[in-house]
Amino acid sequence: MSRPLSNDLFLRALLREPTPRTPVWMMRQAGRYLPEYRATRERAGSFLALCSNPDYACEVTLQPLARFPLDAAILFSDILTIPHALGLGLEFEAGEGPTLAHPVRSAADIDRLPTLDPERELRYVMDAVRLIRRELGGRVPLIGFAGSPWTVATYIVEGGSSKTFARIKAMLYAEPTQLHRLLDKLARATIDYLNAQIRAGAQAVMVFDTWGGVLAPASYLEFSHAYMARIVAELIREHEGRRVPAVLFTKGGGTDALAALATTGADAVGVDWCTDLKDARHAVQGRVALQGNLDPSVLYAPPAVIRAEVGRVLASFGSGPGHVFNLGHGIHPDVAPERAGAMIAAVHDLSPAYHS
Amino acid sequence: MSRPLSNDLFLRALLREPTPRTPVWMMRQAGRYLPEYRATRERAGSFLALCSNPDYACEVTLQPLARFPLDAAILFSDILTIPHALGLGLEFEAGEGPTLAHPVRSAADIDRLPTLDPERELRYVMDAVRLIRRELGGRVPLIGFAGSPWTVATYIVEGGSSKTFARIKAMLYAEPTQLHRLLDKLARATIDYLNAQIRAGAQAVMVFDTWGGVLAPASYLEFSHAYMARIVAELIREHEGRRVPAVLFTKGGGTDALAALATTGADAVGVDWCTDLKDARHAVQGRVALQGNLDPSVLYAPPAVIRAEVGRVLASFGSGPGHVFNLGHGIHPDVAPERAGAMIAAVHDLSPAYHS
Repeated sequence: MSRPLSNDLFLRALLREPTPRTPVWMMRQAGRYLPEYRATRERAGSFLALCSNPDYACEVTLQPLARFPLDAAILFSDILTIPHALGLGLEFEAGEGPTLAHPVRSAADIDRLPTLDPERELRYVMDAVRLIRRELGGRVPLIGFAGSPWTVATYIVEGGSSKTFARIKAMLYAEPTQLHRLLDKLARATIDYLNAQIRAGAQAVMVFDTWGGVLAPASYLEFSHAYMARIVAELIREHEGRRVPAVLFTKGGGTDALAALATTGADAVGVDWCTDLKDARHAVQGRVALQGNLDPSVLYAPPAVIRAEVGRVLASFGSGPGHVFNLGHGIHPDVAPERAGAMIAAVHDLSPAYHS
Repeated sequence: MSRPLSNDLFLRALLREPTPRTPVWMMRQAGRYLPEYRATRERAGSFLALCSNPDYACEVTLQPLARFPLDAAILFSDILTIPHALGLGLEFEAGEGPTLAHPVRSAADIDRLPTLDPERELRYVMDAVRLIRRELGGRVPLIGFAGSPWTVATYIVEGGSSKTFARIKAMLYAEPTQLHRLLDKLARATIDYLNAQIRAGAQAVMVFDTWGGVLAPASYLEFSHAYMARIVAELIREHEGRRVPAVLFTKGGGTDALAALATTGADAVGVDWCTDLKDARHAVQGRVALQGNLDPSVLYAPPAVIRAEVGRVLASFGSGPGHVFNLGHGIHPDVAPERAGAMIAAVHDLSPAYHS
């Protein structure tokens, strides 16, 4: 039996239960802006080696918690672990972003994709989750995650990062049935993957739809939203006697995507910095909690400005439960760690006023 | 005295006057997807040589009109002509995007920026406008354009393209007064530049705010929208005895930006493919015409799909005047020209039903 959580503010806020203050964590909080992360990354030799070694993954997951009073840990991993496990030849070249040596573009390529057993091909992730839970000792909850099927498909079809998404959009408009077959396989793999993370100890899960915002509204609903809704429907929702909240995040989706995500059965939705939380709250009609949404670039500013901008975000959400403070996207690698600390301190200082 | 326009559908639609069908043009219609453009570009030797030679600029401006029944020509130029004229060391390296050898980052850098006389430092643009007008002979109107001050500032401060906009966002949050000084200078230069284009013969002008969408809502209003509003307020609005419509386009702005742009006094706003025209029309409350918004990636699909998607865009705007058909962003360089032709033909075929 694992230890009860000494700080469960994050889980309670995701379920819109009252908390004495707004909990806070940061997307990519275990990452390059931390010198101790860069040191571990150096020892590991490569980004993939870091991800796929549970000891290293655990070490970097815990690093930000040693520095800052964060209310959640997030598994150190990558949204491309599934394509990696599918044997698509994932590599991270320095400064280049990910590339996939074997992109999936034809019906035959899609047919050829194997079915994954997460406890076999992605065992290193589950081992990392188990190890992190043990090392956390109940201090704060651990978040598991995956990329959305659409977002993962963009990398798989393009063969890496993209600016125009030409190949996958060509597939979307010219061969939508093929794309649906691919997304269906990825959704299946993602459900199994997230459920395996939950069984291994993840206490909340988040789906990152980083590229849902490049789709026209009807395409978004059909090719990204629908698959996230399916994932939510098939997730384990209770484990270790407690609700496992599910968070969906479409970057660049705006209020329409937020409104649509609020109807999936997810417990919370992430909000990027381009939508005001007041508008986001209106869009989701009290159906879900909101997570966000400070512009990550605010952390380039001096502490007084950071504090003022944290205040604006808290005020834009307003009073009552159901807000998890976060950046609107991952922390930039060139931010000074002290600036992240200033943000977190400001949330601790300023948020109790919204929870009376 | 110049010849009267034989096709003024575009200007009339921008002013929300009735037309027998929806006019159509394409952002970047003079561009790399056309083999004849690539041939001229080859002869010119470089992109900058192409832009800065009025004969070449005129030649490529007219190329798409020789192929397709378009309702407007747009000056072939670049949004970085102003930084080029400011002596900031603009270069376009093959496949790399623009770089500026002398970025503007300090108060002293901003002080040092010279005042431009568009008929002197940007004479080549005005000569191109005059030549194109002569060569067009009144077939269709000519659109002049500039980048928004915020968008041009991103290149000037970052020293080229950016994904995170780290330097300019740092300036925005940490030294907002400096950024306002820079934007003020750029707005002044842009007003003079667009008015010079109008005097030289541009019959409508468009301001491209390509990067306004990366700003948080309050920052967008303060650092991008406000300067576009000022430009609109100081533009020449009538020339050659006719209204010169002004079009503003914030890519990625969503309905909030559209609603805000509709109050600037602009005649029309551009809409990217991520907002449904029905929602856009609701957001602008009948104050302006709308221009857009087919996903440029639809042109990767076969003609039947293109026709269906054109139909969806027309239907989403609905009946009545005030719609100019366009892509939601520039045409991709790897699109087959015939696909653009299929889109334009579909607009000709399907749009009269919305103008009865």
